[in-house]
Amino acid sequence: MVLRVNEERLWESLEAIAEIGATEGGGSSRLALSENDARARKLFISWCVEAGCDVDIDAIGNIFATRKGREPDLSAVATGSHLDTQPLGGRFDGVYGVLAGLEVIRCLNERSIETRKSVVVVVWTNEEGVRFNPGLTGSQVFSGALPLAVAHDQVTLDGTTVYEDLVATGFLGEGDSCSRKFSAFIEAHIEQGPILEKAGMDIGVVEKVQGITFIEVSIRGENGHAGTLPMEERKDACMAACEIIGEVERQLCRLSADLRVTCGRFTLTPSSISTVPGGADFTFDIRHPDESVISASLAAVGDIVEAVARKRAVEAGVTKSLHKAPVSFDPRLTQKVEAAADTLSLKSMRMVSGAGHDAMNLAAVAPSTMIFVPSLSGISHNEAEYSSPADLANGASVLLQTILDESC
Amino acid sequence: MVLRVNEERLWESLEAIAEIGATEGGGSSRLALSENDARARKLFISWCVEAGCDVDIDAIGNIFATRKGREPDLSAVATGSHLDTQPLGGRFDGVYGVLAGLEVIRCLNERSIETRKSVVVVVWTNEEGVRFNPGLTGSQVFSGALPLAVAHDQVTLDGTTVYEDLVATGFLGEGDSCSRKFSAFIEAHIEQGPILEKAGMDIGVVEKVQGITFIEVSIRGENGHAGTLPMEERKDACMAACEIIGEVERQLCRLSADLRVTCGRFTLTPSSISTVPGGADFTFDIRHPDESVISASLAAVGDIVEAVARKRAVEAGVTKSLHKAPVSFDPRLTQKVEAAADTLSLKSMRMVSGAGHDAMNLAAVAPSTMIFVPSLSGISHNEAEYSSPADLANGASVLLQTILDESC
Repeated sequence: MVLRVNEERLWESLEAIAEIGATEGGGSSRLALSENDARARKLFISWCVEAGCDVDIDAIGNIFATRKGREPDLSAVATGSHLDTQPLGGRFDGVYGVLAGLEVIRCLNERSIETRKSVVVVVWTNEEGVRFNPGLTGSQVFSGALPLAVAHDQVTLDGTTVYEDLVATGFLGEGDSCSRKFSAFIEAHIEQGPILEKAGMDIGVVEKVQGITFIEVSIRGENGHAGTLPMEERKDACMAACEIIGEVERQLCRLSADLRVTCGRFTLTPSSISTVPGGADFTFDIRHPDESVISASLAAVGDIVEAVARKRAVEAGVTKSLHKAPVSFDPRLTQKVEAAADTLSLKSMRMVSGAGHDAMNLAAVAPSTMIFVPSLSGISHNEAEYSSPADLANGASVLLQTILDESC
Repeated sequence: MVLRVNEERLWESLEAIAEIGATEGGGSSRLALSENDARARKLFISWCVEAGCDVDIDAIGNIFATRKGREPDLSAVATGSHLDTQPLGGRFDGVYGVLAGLEVIRCLNERSIETRKSVVVVVWTNEEGVRFNPGLTGSQVFSGALPLAVAHDQVTLDGTTVYEDLVATGFLGEGDSCSRKFSAFIEAHIEQGPILEKAGMDIGVVEKVQGITFIEVSIRGENGHAGTLPMEERKDACMAACEIIGEVERQLCRLSADLRVTCGRFTLTPSSISTVPGGADFTFDIRHPDESVISASLAAVGDIVEAVARKRAVEAGVTKSLHKAPVSFDPRLTQKVEAAADTLSLKSMRMVSGAGHDAMNLAAVAPSTMIFVPSLSGISHNEAEYSSPADLANGASVLLQTILDESC
């Protein structure tokens, strides 16, 4: 049986959610547990109820919409993603995975297909980690990586606690989500990178999520007068920082062609045009599919910082503020996604996810994998983020096919 | 007649002004025309009035405290500097020159010395150029280099105009300062560099002020996801900026050992740890005693920015926001300062000022020079800035001797 989803219906649902928190630049802004996020969640729930699903909410606000199977006591087949966005986010990151799941249920309904196992569409709370930390909150609590009480006590950018926001938005459920068991979790998502588009592929079969490390570097030299202090007497934190960043880029890129290193934050103190800056603080985001390469990168950064600091007579501190090891997805499930794409005559390729996703937490408690669809020019975390209706429908059809296979 | 100033009185006055806007780190913070600056100005004026001076304020807030001479119609001998500081500035930069002038007047008073020409102590407005641009505002307006109306319309960091701040602080005077004529202007200042201390000298006889150029560089690449965007597809503004800064330091230092180049400001947008930054804005402060070396530096910066921008596929803009050619001081007056140091048995050396000073603007309208005293470890624009009471008194005594010679 080869089924395809309703491209137009999926697109219309995406457009309807995108209207909530729509930005002038054509994107969406729905920070986690904000009023906009709550409105999007309520609209989604109303659609699930229309589709005949039972809707449960757990104690961290994760939403579970269940289409009961013939044997509801069996572990369900689950899919889903998140509805929260970056401050100036796109219309597809996260919301696509949620609505692709809903579209699967609508398809099963209109064809009156009864599955053996139940099918669940999940909305995970605060994937983006913008309004409060850590990101991937809902899936971390679900998988036992983050204690519920710690998540509840996080303080948001608005000064409220997560617990208070769950109460205020009506999303403080009672379910102990950790007791739920899934026989599989399959997350559909836009790629957020340029690989599929460049390769001319329809579907990315995600085998792995690369590891991530955040490093914060702090340089302390000495403020000085830009006109009077001879170059050889300076303890210039900016020059030290620039040399470190340049050298880190050079050396790390030599370690592996797949390595990604970014300096996304850089501040100088005192930040005056005529003052040799005594302070520089900057960050590295380092990612690679292999833990050994991340370890080698960390060692290289340490060596570079030390060498430059010694040469330039400044003090330097290096702090690792986040580390997530690479996650491998379930080979059997990944193979099923690939087979589903073949069945639908879609061109697919195996790939590594560059970004972190809820599925990487789910992988600890259930066989998991992801389905990627192309992102125009690889643009994401950006109002200009775009994936075509046809590409989005292809990914949802692969999801439908895989879920059918897993649940029947 | 060999006179010496009162070391203790000078030091106490410096300490009293330093208390206004005192910082935790032992420095002072009095941004131009801020409340703290206004308080320091008012204290200075009260001391001048006690010392029997006439106090006038001009339309850009410059303060002129006049001790009348026997022939008040003659052009006066002037001295002075500024009371505003860097955000985390020292206790001596600027304020020393103002209070050394006041100490000269106090000495003349207590010895009942009548001078032929009047002696004027000036406080120039906004030397530092931190709270609003351009720096050296008051002396530029006085010397005709900056139209008063342009100075009035400058917007401060607080969003007010300079005109509004002059009104609010009570320092909008009426005098047309350009009509004032000085027969000489002698500015005492801390060296703000390590040269006198290293050479074991008491007094720097300043022959020249090196030229200054400010350059603002703006890089526009493309924001991207730090995890998904392959290195070779990036238009990373931070990596481009760091390469430019490193290369500018390398190439410019090769041009001349006396060259000074500083990157004091550096900001990234959007400044998110996991976003490849699409924007970088940074500055260069470039100084050298020879205009030809500054020109060569500017050309090199332009070439480097262009080459890096092309290589890294980013857009780059370079704006020259300030250019001051090197200024030579009056040889006759400089010789008098040297002779005064000899008279006082102080060790002096001729030197080039690394920093810009109000005297460089005065040089266009009156014979001008400067007197430097040693700065501990050359530290300036820093809360740890220090000059010893004895060194400060030496410089003020040279000032007293030179003013006596010029005014009698």
